[in-house]
Amino acid sequence: MRKTSVGVFRIATKGPGDVTGLLSLIESGAIDPRSILAILGKTEGNGGVNDFTREYAVSALCAALTPYIDLPPHRVEERIAFVMSGGTEGVLSPHITVFTRTDVVDSQSPSLSGKRLSIGIAQTRDFLPEELGRRAQIEETAKAVAAAMADAAIADPQDVHFVQIKCPLLTSDRVEAATGRGKQAVTHSAYSSMAYSRGASALGVAVALGEIESEVSDEHVLRNFELFSSVASTSSGIELMHNVVIVLGNSASSASPYEIGHAVMRDAIDSTAVIDALRSVGLRIGDGSAPNASRELTNIFAKAEASPNGSVRGFRHTMLEDTDISATRHARAAVGGLISGLAGTSAVYVSGGAEHQGPPGGGPVAAIARLTEE
Amino acid sequence: MRKTSVGVFRIATKGPGDVTGLLSLIESGAIDPRSILAILGKTEGNGGVNDFTREYAVSALCAALTPYIDLPPHRVEERIAFVMSGGTEGVLSPHITVFTRTDVVDSQSPSLSGKRLSIGIAQTRDFLPEELGRRAQIEETAKAVAAAMADAAIADPQDVHFVQIKCPLLTSDRVEAATGRGKQAVTHSAYSSMAYSRGASALGVAVALGEIESEVSDEHVLRNFELFSSVASTSSGIELMHNVVIVLGNSASSASPYEIGHAVMRDAIDSTAVIDALRSVGLRIGDGSAPNASRELTNIFAKAEASPNGSVRGFRHTMLEDTDISATRHARAAVGGLISGLAGTSAVYVSGGAEHQGPPGGGPVAAIARLTEE
Amino acid sequence: MRKTSVGVFRIATKGPGDVTGLLSLIESGAIDPRSILAILGKTEGNGGVNDFTREYAVSALCAALTPYIDLPPHRVEERIAFVMSGGTEGVLSPHITVFTRTDVVDSQSPSLSGKRLSIGIAQTRDFLPEELGRRAQIEETAKAVAAAMADAAIADPQDVHFVQIKCPLLTSDRVEAATGRGKQAVTHSAYSSMAYSRGASALGVAVALGEIESEVSDEHVLRNFELFSSVASTSSGIELMHNVVIVLGNSASSASPYEIGHAVMRDAIDSTAVIDALRSVGLRIGDGSAPNASRELTNIFAKAEASPNGSVRGFRHTMLEDTDISATRHARAAVGGLISGLAGTSAVYVSGGAEHQGPPGGGPVAAIARLTEE
Amino acid sequence: MRKTSVGVFRIATKGPGDVTGLLSLIESGAIDPRSILAILGKTEGNGGVNDFTREYAVSALCAALTPYIDLPPHRVEERIAFVMSGGTEGVLSPHITVFTRTDVVDSQSPSLSGKRLSIGIAQTRDFLPEELGRRAQIEETAKAVAAAMADAAIADPQDVHFVQIKCPLLTSDRVEAATGRGKQAVTHSAYSSMAYSRGASALGVAVALGEIESEVSDEHVLRNFELFSSVASTSSGIELMHNVVIVLGNSASSASPYEIGHAVMRDAIDSTAVIDALRSVGLRIGDGSAPNASRELTNIFAKAEASPNGSVRGFRHTMLEDTDISATRHARAAVGGLISGLAGTSAVYVSGGAEHQGPPGGGPVAAIARLTEE
Repeated sequence: MRKTSVGVFRIATKGPGDVTGLLSLIESGAIDPRSILAILGKTEGNGGVNDFTREYAVSALCAALTPYIDLPPHRVEERIAFVMSGGTEGVLSPHITVFTRTDVVDSQSPSLSGKRLSIGIAQTRDFLPEELGRRAQIEETAKAVAAAMADAAIADPQDVHFVQIKCPLLTSDRVEAATGRGKQAVTHSAYSSMAYSRGASALGVAVALGEIESEVSDEHVLRNFELFSSVASTSSGIELMHNVVIVLGNSASSASPYEIGHAVMRDAIDSTAVIDALRSVGLRIGDGSAPNASRELTNIFAKAEASPNGSVRGFRHTMLEDTDISATRHARAAVGGLISGLAGTSAVYVSGGAEHQGPPGGGPVAAIARLTEE
Repeated sequence: MRKTSVGVFRIATKGPGDVTGLLSLIESGAIDPRSILAILGKTEGNGGVNDFTREYAVSALCAALTPYIDLPPHRVEERIAFVMSGGTEGVLSPHITVFTRTDVVDSQSPSLSGKRLSIGIAQTRDFLPEELGRRAQIEETAKAVAAAMADAAIADPQDVHFVQIKCPLLTSDRVEAATGRGKQAVTHSAYSSMAYSRGASALGVAVALGEIESEVSDEHVLRNFELFSSVASTSSGIELMHNVVIVLGNSASSASPYEIGHAVMRDAIDSTAVIDALRSVGLRIGDGSAPNASRELTNIFAKAEASPNGSVRGFRHTMLEDTDISATRHARAAVGGLISGLAGTSAVYVSGGAEHQGPPGGGPVAAIARLTEE
Repeated sequence: MRKTSVGVFRIATKGPGDVTGLLSLIESGAIDPRSILAILGKTEGNGGVNDFTREYAVSALCAALTPYIDLPPHRVEERIAFVMSGGTEGVLSPHITVFTRTDVVDSQSPSLSGKRLSIGIAQTRDFLPEELGRRAQIEETAKAVAAAMADAAIADPQDVHFVQIKCPLLTSDRVEAATGRGKQAVTHSAYSSMAYSRGASALGVAVALGEIESEVSDEHVLRNFELFSSVASTSSGIELMHNVVIVLGNSASSASPYEIGHAVMRDAIDSTAVIDALRSVGLRIGDGSAPNASRELTNIFAKAEASPNGSVRGFRHTMLEDTDISATRHARAAVGGLISGLAGTSAVYVSGGAEHQGPPGGGPVAAIARLTEE
Repeated sequence: MRKTSVGVFRIATKGPGDVTGLLSLIESGAIDPRSILAILGKTEGNGGVNDFTREYAVSALCAALTPYIDLPPHRVEERIAFVMSGGTEGVLSPHITVFTRTDVVDSQSPSLSGKRLSIGIAQTRDFLPEELGRRAQIEETAKAVAAAMADAAIADPQDVHFVQIKCPLLTSDRVEAATGRGKQAVTHSAYSSMAYSRGASALGVAVALGEIESEVSDEHVLRNFELFSSVASTSSGIELMHNVVIVLGNSASSASPYEIGHAVMRDAIDSTAVIDALRSVGLRIGDGSAPNASRELTNIFAKAEASPNGSVRGFRHTMLEDTDISATRHARAAVGGLISGLAGTSAVYVSGGAEHQGPPGGGPVAAIARLTEE
C-alpha cells in the first residue's frame, strides 16, 4: 500500500520579508523544497484591505524558493499553496507553517500505528464574478473538498479536522464584466465581497462534510449563521478567481509522526473548546506538552470574530463600535491571548473573519501534535 | 468583637456616563449609598493620555451620588475612592465594581466561618513634585499600606491579595515649581512621570508587605524590575498629589460572604496563574463556578503589559513596535482574552501598565468569589 | 424697527469637560448666559460611534450653565442647541463657538451698515422611525429651515450661508417599533441610519433654499450625490427624534458686528473655495486679517469627506482602505490642515460626513468675520 | 563645457509592490534605466517602526530593475539611491519620483538659459555605532554634502534647495559592539537612535551650507532646536551604516528643463512658505500652473512634524497625546492637506520626523517645476 509522510515545520519570522528560517531548514536538509505543498503564515500587518505584509511575504517566499524548484518566481504559486493571514495582535507571534508531503515505503515507519496527519489539495474551476457568494461557489467548493479528501486519502468526514480555503473577491472590473453580460454580482463592494466569498466557501465545506443536511441556497449566505462548518477556515484574496482547498485530517495511509484534532469554540472565550482540541491530540493545557512527554504541540489553527450581536455570554463587548481599532484586530488579540495561554506558546495561527466558520462569535480550533515516541 | 461586612457589586455599564445600574441597586435597597467605600471601573476609552472616558465616568458617578450622600459633586471624591481604568479591548466588557463596608453585629452572620473579604483605605500626605518616583513616595506609600491594612483589620501580609493605588503624575507646572526651589524632578515628561509614580507606588507596596527585603532606593525605580509586588495595581492621575491606597484581603473580622485570593502571572500567557487564582477561592475554570455550586466568581482584577524584552516564551511579539495600536491596548486585549476565557466571563478588570507590579511582562491576578451557602 | 445683535465667541478648551473659558466670559460680563442660543464645538475624540467626548462636553456645559439659567441640567438642552463634532485630527484645535442673540434698539449701532450676521433656530416635529432618511424628513426639514430663516429675519436664500442641523438616528428599538406597526425602516443598521438621516436633512436644506429644482424622493437619498446643498452641515445623534435647525446668514435686521459668507469646496484640496469664503467676508489668506485691519476672522465652519471614488483630481487616495485610521479622521486632518493654513488659525470647525452637503468629496465652507471698525 | 541633463518623473503607484508605471516608461523609452540615479517614494504604510511597505517597495523596484542594469537584485541599491517615506495620510497619494542624469552636448538645449535642476550624490564612510547622533556624523555628513554639491556642479550654497539624506540607526547588536570596545552609544533605544541620526545628519547639512556659524557639538543634537537646516530632509534606516546624501539644486552646468526652489515653513499651517516655494519656480497656487502656462509643477518635497510645544500659533493641538494615531501620521495628514491644496495635486512628497530640519513644528518645502517653453 502506498503511504505518504507529511511534515509540519513551524518557523518563526523576523519580519514579513524574512525567509532565512526556511532557507536554513532547506540548506540543512530538514526540508526538501520539492516536497513543500503548502505554507500557512501569520504576518504582522493589520489584516485589513491595506495589509501589504501578506503579498510581501508571498513575494519573498517565491523569490527565495525559485532557485530550488526550477520555476520562475511568478509561477511558484502554481506549485505551492500560500495562505498568509495578516494580524499578530496581542501576544501572537509572526511565523509560517510549512507542510511537506513525500511518498514513503511502509517499512520506514514501523513504530507508528493508527491514523496520522494527512494533507490534500484541490482547486475549483474559475468562477464567473456573479457566481461568487452564491450557490455555484458553494457547490464547486464542495466538490473540491471531496477531491482534496481523496488526495489526502481520507474517506471519513470525521477524519477531516481543518479545511483552509483561499477564495476570490470582487473588484469593480469584475462586477462590470458581469453587468456587461446582463448578470448581477452579489455586491458591488470589494470589501463585502470578501465576506460573501468566505461565507460561501465555508458553506461548501459544510456541504461536503455533511455538516448541513438541508439544501443550501443563495439566500443563506451571510444571513443564516446557524449554518456553518466546524472545520472551515477561509480567506479571500484578489489574485485568483478560483478556490484553492487544503484539507488537513488523519489517514491510515499516512506514516506521518503528526496527528490532528479539532473542536469548535462556541464564543470568543470558549476555553473548554481549546482544551478539547488540545486533548484530542493527547496534550494538556498550559505548556503544550503531554503528561508522558511523548507528544508535543506543533501548532494550533483557529478562526476568531467579534460576536455579531455585540455581547459575549451576556456582557457587552465594544469591538464593533470602535472607530480606532477594527473588530477583526480586537478579536484576533483576544482569542489569540486565550489560545496562546492554553497552548503555552504564542506562535499560533489565529485568523479573523469567521462567516459560517463555526457559530456566530465562535470558530473552529484545530491542533497538530508531534508524536515523539510511542 | 466589632465586625464589618463588605459588599461587592459588579455592575455592567452601557457607556462611560451610564449610572442607571448603580442607581437601580440604590433605589432597590441592595446598595446603601452611604456605605460605598470605593468604585473600580473599566471604561471603554483607549486607556492612554487622551482617554476622557475615565474622568467622564467619575464625573457622572459623582453627579449621580451627590443627592444620596449630602455632598456637592466636587466633594464626592473625598468620601469615595474612584479608580477608573480605561481600555476594554477585545472581549473586555465595560463595568464598575462597587465596594461597600458596614458594621455588623456578630449574630448576623453565624453560618460563615474563616477569614472573609475585608477592605481598607488610607492615603499618604501630599508629595512634593521632586518626591514622585523616588524613595519618599516609596516610603510614604508603604506607611499608607500599613494604615490601610489596619483599617481592613488585616495583620498578616499573607492575607493581602490586591492593593489598588491611585498616584499623582508630574505636569510642567509641577516640574517648574520644583526647579524654582532648586530641586530636580525625576523626569520632565508627563507621560513618563506616570510610569515613575506607578513604579514607586508598587515598590511601596512591596516594602510594606515584606516582598522586598533589601533597602529600596531611587535608582531601583524603573530600572531593577526584579523588584516587584505580587499584589500591587497602581494607576496615576492628574487630579491628586498624594497616593490613595485600597487594600483588599481576607480578615477574621469580616462577616462578608466574599473571599479573595491571588496569584502572579509570570508572563502574558500564564494560564496556570489565572487558574491558581480561581482555585484559591474555590473556583474551577471555564465557567467561574465551583463543583458544588456553593461559590461563584464576583470579579477578577489583573494587570497586563507587553513584555519589555519583546518576546513571550521565546517567541517575538509585535506589541512594542506597532505604530497603530499602543502596546498597552494590545496587552489588555490578549490578557483580557485569556482571563475571560478561564473565568467564563468578560466583565473582568484587566488594567495596563504594570511597572514593578509582578515580574516583567507579567502581573498580579486576584479573584473574588461569593460564598452562596456553606 | 426691531433689531437683534448676534454675538460669536470662539473659546479654546483644555479638554472635553473644560468649561472654565465659558464661565470666565460669563463672570466677566462678556457673555450674558441667558442670551446663549447655540454652542457648536470641536471635541478631541475620534468622531466615530464610540466618541464619548461629545456627550461629555454637552454634559459638562449643561452642568455649568444650569445655575445661570434656572433650569436643571437635563433641561438646558431645551433652551440651547448644542452641536459637538468629534475629531481634532492634525492641527485642529478643540474649542467651542458660542452664539448669543439679544434685542437691541436701533441707535445702539449707528456705525454699522449693510446686512450683518443673524441666527435663527427652528425644529421639526418628532419623526416616526420609518420616516428617517426619506421624503418626510426632507420635507419637514425644509419647513423648519424656512421657519429658522424667518426667526433670523432672512428672506432671501442667497443670504443663508450655513445651516447646521442635528438629526436623529435609528436604534434597534426604533426599527422594531416601526416593524411592529407594519412599517419598514430605511435600514436596520444604526451606523448607516446616521448617513441616511444626515443625507435627508441636507436635502431638506437644499429644497428649502431652492438649490434643487426637481422633486426629491426617497430613492435620491444616498444615491444621487449630484443633488446637494452648498450650505448644509448635518450631524446625527441618538438623543432626539426630531431635527434641530440652526440657520446662519446675513440680515438687514441685525446690528451685529459680524458678517458671514461661504463657498463650496469641490474636492478636499480646493484651496480656491476656502480663499473665496475668506474673501467673501473681506479677509485675505494666511493670517485671517484684512488689508486695512478692519476685519478679523472669528471662525470657519466646513464639512469634509474622503471622495467616494477613491481619488482626488486623478490621484488615488488611501483613506477608504485604511483599516487603522477611519476615512473620516483622515479627511478632517487633511481638510483641517488646508483650512487652518489659509485661515492662519487651527481653531476652526471642520466636521466629517458630508452626504449631500456639497459635491462628492467636497463640502461647504463658511467664514464669519468681525468688523472692528469701518 | 560638460553639461548634464536631469530628468524627473513622478509616477503614481497602485500599491507598494507596483512597478508597472516605471516599467512602462522604461519600455516606451521615456526613461533610460541606466540613467536612474535616485528614486524617492511615498508608500502607503504607517511610516512607523512596523511599516514594511518601504522595504517591500524597494525590494520590488530592485527586482524589476535588475534585468535592465546587469546587477543582481541585492546590488541594485549600490547603483541607485532609494528613499521611501511611509505614510500617505489624508489626501496624500502613493507615488515615486525617479531622478535620472545623463551627459549632454551643449547644442542639445539651446533654448534654455539660466541655472537648471542638477542632482549630485555622495556618501560618507561607515560610522561606528558610538559616532551616530554625534559630532563625527555631523562632520562627515557635512563633507559628503560638499562632495554631492561638487557632483551636482553647484558651487554656491544658495543654489542648494533640498538635501535628502538616508542615515543609519542603532540596533541592540550595534550598541553592544560599541560597549564591547568600551564606548557608549548616544542611546540604547533603536527608536530614539533614529531621531539622533536624523538630527545629526540635518545639522551636517546646516554646517556644510553655512546655515550655522558657530561650532556644533554633541550636546546640540536633539536639544538646541534653534539650530537647523532649511533644506535638509533626513530619514534613517536599518540597512546601512553610512549616510547617503542626495543634493538637489540649480546649476549653470545643467541643461535640464527643470528648476527647483524652496522655502521654510515656520509652523504646520505656514501657507505663505508653501506659496513662496511655488512662486520661487514661477508657479501660482491652486493648480500648480503658471499664468503664462510655460511652467508646470513636477513635485513638492516637504517635512512635517507636530510642534513639540503642543500648540500652533497659540492654539493647542492634540497630536502628541493621541494614543490611537501617532503624531507623525497626524502631522503628515495636516501638512499634506495644506500643500496639496496649494499645489493643486495630492501626489506630493510630505515626510515626517523633522528634527533640525526647519524650525520646531515647521520644516523645509521645495518645489520642482518643468519649463515647457520659454
